[in-house]
Amino acid sequence: MPNYKLIYFNMRARGEVARLLFTLAQVEFQDIRIEYPSEEWIKLKPTTPLGQLPVLEVDGQRLVQSKAIFKYLAREFVYGKSNWECAEIDGIMDTCEDFHTPITPILRSEGSEKAKLLQTYQEETLPQILNGLESLVPDGHNYFVGEKLTVADLSAYCDIELASIIAEIPINELLHKYPKLSAIRSHVESNDRIASWVKTRPKTYV
Amino acid sequence: MPNYKLIYFNMRARGEVARLLFTLAQVEFQDIRIEYPSEEWIKLKPTTPLGQLPVLEVDGQRLVQSKAIFKYLAREFVYGKSNWECAEIDGIMDTCEDFHTPITPILRSEGSEKAKLLQTYQEETLPQILNGLESLVPDGHNYFVGEKLTVADLSAYCDIELASIIAEIPINELLHKYPKLSAIRSHVESNDRIASWVKTRPKTYV
Repeated sequence: MPNYKLIYFNMRARGEVARLLFTLAQVEFQDIRIEYPSEEWIKLKPTTPLGQLPVLEVDGQRLVQSKAIFKYLAREFVYGKSNWECAEIDGIMDTCEDFHTPITPILRSEGSEKAKLLQTYQEETLPQILNGLESLVPDGHNYFVGEKLTVADLSAYCDIELASIIAEIPINELLHKYPKLSAIRSHVESNDRIASWVKTRPKTYV
Repeated sequence: MPNYKLIYFNMRARGEVARLLFTLAQVEFQDIRIEYPSEEWIKLKPTTPLGQLPVLEVDGQRLVQSKAIFKYLAREFVYGKSNWECAEIDGIMDTCEDFHTPITPILRSEGSEKAKLLQTYQEETLPQILNGLESLVPDGHNYFVGEKLTVADLSAYCDIELASIIAEIPINELLHKYPKLSAIRSHVESNDRIASWVKTRPKTYV
């Protein structure tokens, strides 16, 4: 097994899907957590390929971009059974990306500007993405793609949680009109390995 | 060969990489172009899975999200030679995505707000992405990944062109500090099939 080193901030945000994939696959990895902001990050930043985290090191070779890392690990451990299933997974992960895009502007703004951006996020962005994701779950299925947990379910699980924190809407309330997404959430949480990870991981805001 | 139908607006923007992949692979496809805005799009929108285009139909089954579509086609025709190469390609495509994120706010704003957003795009966003992409081209190589044209090169080719149009900076000027990216651009353009497609495709703004 290669030596895996995941370097990310001390948060879930754009790193947790990788940690869940290692956990599901029962593969050891170094979970390196950098405080943000910190002197350590200021020193580390120029040494990373894009000035960004996460970076995944595999036997010393580096990969960039969170979703590229998630898909790499998913392909190593478990992905779709066919090119078509992989593309369905990619479509779901790219839809989940829309949860992230408005977050930085919200966090960087203040006062009435922040309130306005937050309201748009709560009332327009989230329903649009959640409706889209709900429609991508096949009727009568427990997962987005195929008959088992994939990186698509893990991505939606992590990103919906992040969105609920940013939007200041409890997850149950956020998902109450989305029975299929609620069911996927329960399936992810009831996986023994995931449940144990969630219970013991460092507590962080996002 | 399956029946491929690419449904997208009458623009290059988020559809052209798929068209270039079909062109490179010499695979027939229906290049369905919807005018935007139009009555036709208003009618079509609620019938699409996410209310968005592009949609790729393969023998009547539908895939969503531009990058998921590009990667699906790339996997059908040509992708990386290994999981590692695929992840390098994904990392480059996700970095190219950063060209797109600020565009909608720029197009939707007006007056001094638009000028401010455009200035940030020109002076901060573009140099940051271009520096990142340049650093991801291995020294002495003609392509981002491996020894031949991949969907990573096509994505960078299309997205850099889009960025230059939005930023109102000619491509040569935009790339003059980035010799590796300029070289990749030349390699893409000098491919016979791509050159012929570019010459004969419908002329659109983006």
